[in-house]
Amino acid sequence: MSQIDRANAEAVRRILSGDPVLVDVVPAGDAIPALKDGRKILHAGPPIGWDRMCGPMRGAVQGIAVFEGWARDLEDAAGKADQGAFAFHPNHAFGAVGPMTGMTTLSQPLLVVENRAFGNRAYCAINEGLGKVMRFGGNDAEVLTRLAWLRDQLGPALGLALRDMGGIPLKTLVARGLTMGDEMHQRNVACSSLLLRLLAPALARTTTDTADLARCLDFIGRNDQFFLNVAMAMGKAMTDPARGIAASSIVTAMCRNGTDFGIRVAGTGDQWFTAPVEMPVGMYFPGYSEADANPDMGDSAIVETIGLGGFAMGAAPAVVGFIGAGTASDAANFTRAMAEITLGPNPEWTIPAMDYAGVPTGIDIRRVVESGIAPTINTGIAHRKPGVGQVGAGTVKAPLKCFEDALEAFAAGMGIT
Amino acid sequence: MSQIDRANAEAVRRILSGDPVLVDVVPAGDAIPALKDGRKILHAGPPIGWDRMCGPMRGAVQGIAVFEGWARDLEDAAGKADQGAFAFHPNHAFGAVGPMTGMTTLSQPLLVVENRAFGNRAYCAINEGLGKVMRFGGNDAEVLTRLAWLRDQLGPALGLALRDMGGIPLKTLVARGLTMGDEMHQRNVACSSLLLRLLAPALARTTTDTADLARCLDFIGRNDQFFLNVAMAMGKAMTDPARGIAASSIVTAMCRNGTDFGIRVAGTGDQWFTAPVEMPVGMYFPGYSEADANPDMGDSAIVETIGLGGFAMGAAPAVVGFIGAGTASDAANFTRAMAEITLGPNPEWTIPAMDYAGVPTGIDIRRVVESGIAPTINTGIAHRKPGVGQVGAGTVKAPLKCFEDALEAFAAGMGIT
Repeated sequence: MSQIDRANAEAVRRILSGDPVLVDVVPAGDAIPALKDGRKILHAGPPIGWDRMCGPMRGAVQGIAVFEGWARDLEDAAGKADQGAFAFHPNHAFGAVGPMTGMTTLSQPLLVVENRAFGNRAYCAINEGLGKVMRFGGNDAEVLTRLAWLRDQLGPALGLALRDMGGIPLKTLVARGLTMGDEMHQRNVACSSLLLRLLAPALARTTTDTADLARCLDFIGRNDQFFLNVAMAMGKAMTDPARGIAASSIVTAMCRNGTDFGIRVAGTGDQWFTAPVEMPVGMYFPGYSEADANPDMGDSAIVETIGLGGFAMGAAPAVVGFIGAGTASDAANFTRAMAEITLGPNPEWTIPAMDYAGVPTGIDIRRVVESGIAPTINTGIAHRKPGVGQVGAGTVKAPLKCFEDALEAFAAGMGIT
Repeated sequence: MSQIDRANAEAVRRILSGDPVLVDVVPAGDAIPALKDGRKILHAGPPIGWDRMCGPMRGAVQGIAVFEGWARDLEDAAGKADQGAFAFHPNHAFGAVGPMTGMTTLSQPLLVVENRAFGNRAYCAINEGLGKVMRFGGNDAEVLTRLAWLRDQLGPALGLALRDMGGIPLKTLVARGLTMGDEMHQRNVACSSLLLRLLAPALARTTTDTADLARCLDFIGRNDQFFLNVAMAMGKAMTDPARGIAASSIVTAMCRNGTDFGIRVAGTGDQWFTAPVEMPVGMYFPGYSEADANPDMGDSAIVETIGLGGFAMGAAPAVVGFIGAGTASDAANFTRAMAEITLGPNPEWTIPAMDYAGVPTGIDIRRVVESGIAPTINTGIAHRKPGVGQVGAGTVKAPLKCFEDALEAFAAGMGIT
């Protein structure tokens, strides 16, 4: 076994032996104290400045600046952004992830996933539901009012319930979700439902006002994608222990900011390898078409990085039609293709319809470059203008250039020319 | 099109156009006033007297007699049963169904499913959960205490919440469950979870004591089979409008009492065609084997009668291993086989992994007899002694003799010799 093979086996061992537990919901400023200084705005994807941000990302920045009280209104926020009043950083730089635009600022409540096998924690905001939402660039009063309710009601209620329960172990929950048609990216109805089943009694025990309780249960219950943000924090918590393993060519993060796609590789530490992000191919909601679509966006590809999403398509035949990726019976083919570029199957996360084949885990940049097979990512599609919201769902390929550049840097680091 | 084909098309049209809605939970004596007279005990399956009842059925009768205050203790109950103190009738004779032993007596709370397309209602007791339970012949203090809690707390709370919501439409819920790996007989985790998602906010609005609420949510949340009893009442509500359609050879009920298997056919009205019930073939819990098993039991085969359970196996690859019916990838073969003996696919209940083939619906006794293919039923397996409980799960074949006898009577009624 070569040095690289050994390092890769260790990287995948760390990913597979993670023990992610949803333990709390806390204000972002408590989870990430650095957010308290200097009007920091964390965003999805690799680093990007205001000047290169796409429409929905700019819309979200304007909205969150108003929400945090850093701007009078959206116009004022845009002006301040232009003048450099906000410090932009990737979520990944602070142990966090965020879907689509992925705004994380100090007063938002964050889901906390603790990887009990390694002691690290990762964070993600609470899913806002469907319709006009900040993750798709929404920034009007409806969006900001909902964010305030998440901050003032749902976030604290969830935190109380989770602490009362001692947390919710996620590994078995996800294993179950895979037997129930979820791939944990564009389809989370099973895990969202299973999570609510576990949360509801604890919320009832810890919430005193039954009207508040009913609203919390209703909000979670109406959102089939509620679990996505939990899965994302889980993905970050599971991949972080593999970061920085010398000589490993395993991918530790994939993410997009709507302009660039970026990856990180274990053996090259926290360096980003970026390329222009691609356009998703998929199904559009009535009244919209590809002409309306923003290029691919969000930190959510962290779920593909741990073998879920497009990699677990075989578990979720019902998602294939939703994202316009072919016929339902083709679902397993996506999973088989991803097995070509990964180190091996996850023995604990298996797909019944594929006779319990494990989801393909541990993307090896060498295999991606050699095979020319790019990771398939299941994704929502945002309107390219701020404030409109989601217009469809589809699949997108990670740009091969990220992997080629990463392999070059990796090889150079290993002294291979 | 022959007279029989026309009648069968009408029978299946009625089954498929049903609009089942879970509308209430009420005391059985209110739903079925006849229960208030004469110490009536309704049981699963076709008619049977105390003398021919199997072990777990006798155990359940003893337990429910104590529960209703008709006997001092289990021994006294057995003596009274021997002396003819209780009037035994099938659930099916009173618009009801019950899982396994299927005890229905006046003070138990019943789920009420209304078929809004036809105005009829059907009833089933609330699922008691796992472990020692009356449906598997359990009858000790733990079992009776739980039944009292269902009667005094959970039943009334569910009734209040359901009335507040205006009921829960079941057709779309089941459609969704089929995309999430449920077949609605031995696997109900998706529909149980989806149901709780809908019920939880209403329970929170209508329950005043949060400790009671937490216990209700916890009880439902811990029981993956909670939805089974809802599905059974739904099956009864959907098949009843097809009862008595002259010249139709479509099955309107299949059920078992642990001694006999019985079927009813549309064109022969409420006549039962029975045969000795078969032994399930399946997987046993640790410490148990086929030697411990009771023959097949329960009204739950009403779900196969509407195309679910064994008929919808293709939707539920994960159930195949649980019931010991082969490899997960074989699941679709069961569904394909059942298509041979049914009138056609249900366009609203489809299976994604089979490219949205509808579940095979409308068992035609002619096709069963001609093909020799018996309906496959997914089932729990009870210990043959009273009071032990569930020992496994498996599949069982409906005895062909029921269908042969029914076909003979049907043909005679049609003047065919």
